[in-house]
Amino acid sequence: MALIVQKFGGDALGDKGKGKSKDGSEPLFGAQFLANKFLQIARIVKRSVDDGHKVIVVVSAMGDATNRLIAMAQALSPKQPAREMDMLMVTGEQQAIALMAIALHALGVPAMSFTGFQVGIITESVFGKARIKDINSDRLKRALAEGVVPVVAGFQGTTRDFEFTTLGRGGSDITAVAVGAAVGADYCEFYKDVDGIFTTDPRMAPRAHKIDRISYDEMLELASLGAGVLQSRSVEFAKNYNVPLHVRSFLHDRPGTYVVPEEKEMEDVVVSGVAFNRTEAKITLLGLPDRPGMAAELFSRVGEKGIVVDMIIQNGAGGGTNDITFTVARSDYDAAMKIAGEVCREIGAKKAEGDDTIAKISAVGVGMRSHADVASKMFRALAADNINIMLISTSEIKISCIIAEKDLDRAVRSVHDAFEAERESS
Amino acid sequence: MALIVQKFGGDALGDKGKGKSKDGSEPLFGAQFLANKFLQIARIVKRSVDDGHKVIVVVSAMGDATNRLIAMAQALSPKQPAREMDMLMVTGEQQAIALMAIALHALGVPAMSFTGFQVGIITESVFGKARIKDINSDRLKRALAEGVVPVVAGFQGTTRDFEFTTLGRGGSDITAVAVGAAVGADYCEFYKDVDGIFTTDPRMAPRAHKIDRISYDEMLELASLGAGVLQSRSVEFAKNYNVPLHVRSFLHDRPGTYVVPEEKEMEDVVVSGVAFNRTEAKITLLGLPDRPGMAAELFSRVGEKGIVVDMIIQNGAGGGTNDITFTVARSDYDAAMKIAGEVCREIGAKKAEGDDTIAKISAVGVGMRSHADVASKMFRALAADNINIMLISTSEIKISCIIAEKDLDRAVRSVHDAFEAERESS
Repeated sequence: MALIVQKFGGDALGDKGKGKSKDGSEPLFGAQFLANKFLQIARIVKRSVDDGHKVIVVVSAMGDATNRLIAMAQALSPKQPAREMDMLMVTGEQQAIALMAIALHALGVPAMSFTGFQVGIITESVFGKARIKDINSDRLKRALAEGVVPVVAGFQGTTRDFEFTTLGRGGSDITAVAVGAAVGADYCEFYKDVDGIFTTDPRMAPRAHKIDRISYDEMLELASLGAGVLQSRSVEFAKNYNVPLHVRSFLHDRPGTYVVPEEKEMEDVVVSGVAFNRTEAKITLLGLPDRPGMAAELFSRVGEKGIVVDMIIQNGAGGGTNDITFTVARSDYDAAMKIAGEVCREIGAKKAEGDDTIAKISAVGVGMRSHADVASKMFRALAADNINIMLISTSEIKISCIIAEKDLDRAVRSVHDAFEAERESS
Repeated sequence: MALIVQKFGGDALGDKGKGKSKDGSEPLFGAQFLANKFLQIARIVKRSVDDGHKVIVVVSAMGDATNRLIAMAQALSPKQPAREMDMLMVTGEQQAIALMAIALHALGVPAMSFTGFQVGIITESVFGKARIKDINSDRLKRALAEGVVPVVAGFQGTTRDFEFTTLGRGGSDITAVAVGAAVGADYCEFYKDVDGIFTTDPRMAPRAHKIDRISYDEMLELASLGAGVLQSRSVEFAKNYNVPLHVRSFLHDRPGTYVVPEEKEMEDVVVSGVAFNRTEAKITLLGLPDRPGMAAELFSRVGEKGIVVDMIIQNGAGGGTNDITFTVARSDYDAAMKIAGEVCREIGAKKAEGDDTIAKISAVGVGMRSHADVASKMFRALAADNINIMLISTSEIKISCIIAEKDLDRAVRSVHDAFEAERESS
């Protein structure tokens, strides 16, 4: 018998295939359609309860109801006070927990819904993206002791002054992990419309397959690179509190991917997954004078505009000058190019060049730490397919290459299959 | 400068003219339509603030959103736990207060929304129809002192164990009065789609007109008889705590009807209003043996079935038997007739007769206490129109007659105009 936190998000509540008008005037999902989604989830919970497990359910809001509220707030005012938006938004999860508890009752499972406030989720006093400071798990433990399934509202908490707050993007996942940590859950299950975490996107590389077990660190590298089934913040939280995660499908009962503390055998696999994104752009300043403070000047100017820089690479170009290349989110490309041009003129660099048709491909695996020659294997795979590498950066468990966007599909398949072949032969 | 509680209900938020399908699959109101309703209310509040008043706003939920939630709950289960329904329902008011605060901000009025819990509305531990036990007004007073308009969620509170409760029918009105009592408001304004309380329904009697001032007791008699613009519970609450009410229109700025403690001059008007309903039925047991306990037997059997009896009249029919007539809600007519027939047989009464095509007309006024002959004036008005009176009952400030439903329109006009003529000539 295990103590399990089961988290159900928007995809389990029918958000996918929505595509309704954003002004909220279009028909929302019918009551019966949504009721069936709740009952589908309730049957998953009941299965675990019938198997003898103790279960805590965490749910997020029905997306279409939330969209309607946002549309109304925007129709009222172009700028809404953050406190009032949180007051508005937390109602979405509160509706979902009440309906979920009613659905469980309908199947004969004793259940009680709890808001973030009621289970003592205390956050900082920051609206829209508060961090959890404390959870008082007494009420949850009491409900569990009474044989009741607690249904907890994700995404929300209250400050010590009883102000309602929301946890920001991925907040419901964080609630699930935080609740799991507070009650000492055996694991947190995340029910998704995918079978688990894959070695890479199967649409890019047909040989991609589900990973059975992966470490928190590997998951973090894969998540932040766009293979994002789980939000990075919740994985970090799980790592800090040592809460095992299980990403699985709500469409069937087969196991998905366990995200767990690093295990000895994980190092046997050199590369766990291949991540990628097409959301960056690169900018190069050529011929910077080789004086101290040039890089500091450039990146403090970029940072002042709120632009986050991903990779930075500097090469001595010879002749007393340097070239600096960095990448930014594609949405920041124009602003960053403008700054780069200004800095160029001011410090007498040769010129600034940019390219927003790039892509990033990364191989991730804790096995890299103990296996030599991983980088060169990746470079050889790309070279064999005639793919030019523009930039390289490495960390302890990751190697990333910037390439032309047009080459990305072939690159993912080549790199993935090269390491896949190695895994099969090992 | 006054301290005013302003309450806005479903009619101000666009509930009227709704008529959407109950299963929740039909289009709800568009975001812009509802936003305009909120802004219309916000302008009323702003006008009072600009006039130098301190204002607390109380709002109830947007009706169409609530209907959708109820439809979903019903689609999940034929029977929903009351606790979970309250958890679900309180979100409606919470959404409304957040949107209302955003609307006030949009007009430049500093405002903060507060749930029932946040303003310390403590209720009994009864779901669906809790009574308010206490209000801690500290937070409201602090907001007022800071020049902020508090926007309070009607209809809801929490128990001492932090369970969410709702106050039942008319609950938002009760919240407004309770908040008014807690902060010592000068009066509570109820914004409606009518100009105030009328002497009777203008569709029945064209000479009907708005009442300027009326006592709590008169309002209670008028409200419970179906002229119900204000719920009886909130009027009782206002009477107990001496909170003056002002029922007025949200469509213009003219004064409506003040509902206030009884004043000396009110006795000058013999009849303040004429109320009526078509929702009762009458049952007569003929020839009951004239023994003690007959009435007790009958009405305890009726009461056991949860049937509420309105009027009871007993006449000695002579010859050692009695006739008893009573009225019940028309929806309880069949059940009550069945009981009456059973009791008849068991105790050897002659027979039970019923009539569900009756109506009740009542003249109400504190002036009755000091004016003789009010009853006979009412009976003469009815007789002059050839209307037969079936039953009569009187209280200190009310005379009610049961008549045939087909006669009701003429009866209301006759009785209303008879007392109206007297008022004009006085």
